[in-house]
Amino acid sequence: MSNIQLSDRQLKIIDIVKEKGPITSEQIASMLSVTRATLRPDLAILTMSGILDARPKVGYFYVGIDENNLISKKLKSKKVEEMMSVPIVVSEEATVYDTIVTIFLEDTGSVFVTNDGFLSGVVSRKDLLKSAIGGMDINKIPVGIIMTRMPNIIIASQNDSASDVARKIIEHEVDSIPVVEYIKREDGKEGYRILGKISKTNITRFFVELAGE
Amino acid sequence: MSNIQLSDRQLKIIDIVKEKGPITSEQIASMLSVTRATLRPDLAILTMSGILDARPKVGYFYVGIDENNLISKKLKSKKVEEMMSVPIVVSEEATVYDTIVTIFLEDTGSVFVTNDGFLSGVVSRKDLLKSAIGGMDINKIPVGIIMTRMPNIIIASQNDSASDVARKIIEHEVDSIPVVEYIKREDGKEGYRILGKISKTNITRFFVELAGE
Repeated sequence: MSNIQLSDRQLKIIDIVKEKGPITSEQIASMLSVTRATLRPDLAILTMSGILDARPKVGYFYVGIDENNLISKKLKSKKVEEMMSVPIVVSEEATVYDTIVTIFLEDTGSVFVTNDGFLSGVVSRKDLLKSAIGGMDINKIPVGIIMTRMPNIIIASQNDSASDVARKIIEHEVDSIPVVEYIKREDGKEGYRILGKISKTNITRFFVELAGE
Repeated sequence: MSNIQLSDRQLKIIDIVKEKGPITSEQIASMLSVTRATLRPDLAILTMSGILDARPKVGYFYVGIDENNLISKKLKSKKVEEMMSVPIVVSEEATVYDTIVTIFLEDTGSVFVTNDGFLSGVVSRKDLLKSAIGGMDINKIPVGIIMTRMPNIIIASQNDSASDVARKIIEHEVDSIPVVEYIKREDGKEGYRILGKISKTNITRFFVELAGE
């Protein structure tokens, strides 16, 4: 943050601490073949400028002026379960028309589809729009026919980070991702149970929160 | 970042520097009725821990361990023009059907509508889906009939920040916002010229960039 001009020795100290830190001033002095007293003003400048930090009985370590790293850590520390929405779910037997009605009633962008309680598909506004103009009878066709079906669905788990799931959304060009857990039921059947939904809206909302803090 | 226990005097120093900074150590000493020598270890701890910073001939100022503030600044410093996409535009006379085809061809979520070259409306997948199942003849109805019309459109300017526009998207519950400038043409007509588009996708992509840095 400070805009300071560093000497060659100060730059060498930074390199040493980056590589070997935490490291004591004695060790740095010995590596540079100078006395501790000689180093003292350099270390004072480097710590005051926030480039190095020092902890008693531990030594110096590198902090850097690394705001991007700080932001990255923050985005990675936010968990999906802290930001997911309630998912809107229909069963595979629901008609395309009913699914469109659900989209409007719930004001959602995409709907998750289940078969026997387990995630079986995802259907987006785009899929529904395609069916609606495609000349098929949307009152008869079940949504299971037009949905994207497992295993071609991008999923997330509760413990994924905000940045993991945002990356999936961008890389796979999807609007929303079901948050799931794999379970084995008492009846012996197993599959993904739907816990929540993460969409670009959740990411945008988190972004607004961060900016407002 | 460091997790240190501060003394009462150190906390008082922080309050003074927060309020009066930049401030010299002499001034702080006089406000606390102690000598500079007494303060020296306190100031060393506060600067080494990154809470205060010091500049020669200026004095101490407050930095804080304020990562949220840092993130907020970063999000506010990113300008819309650095992250906007190329907008997809149709004229008011285009039919609803043609607009749906455009949405699929361009793989976009919403389309901006112009009248005589100026922004006149916005139409989303949701609007188009509603028309497609609404029983109207989408081959005849012009998109101008079903679009959201000026002045009921949320707009942004090139110089708005990423966080401004993300907030508009969330507050107004829209998927995308036209980036515009108000112009007066040589023919005397005036209105908004469309420069770009910001959607939740752009915000999510920026989020991924930040996390990856």
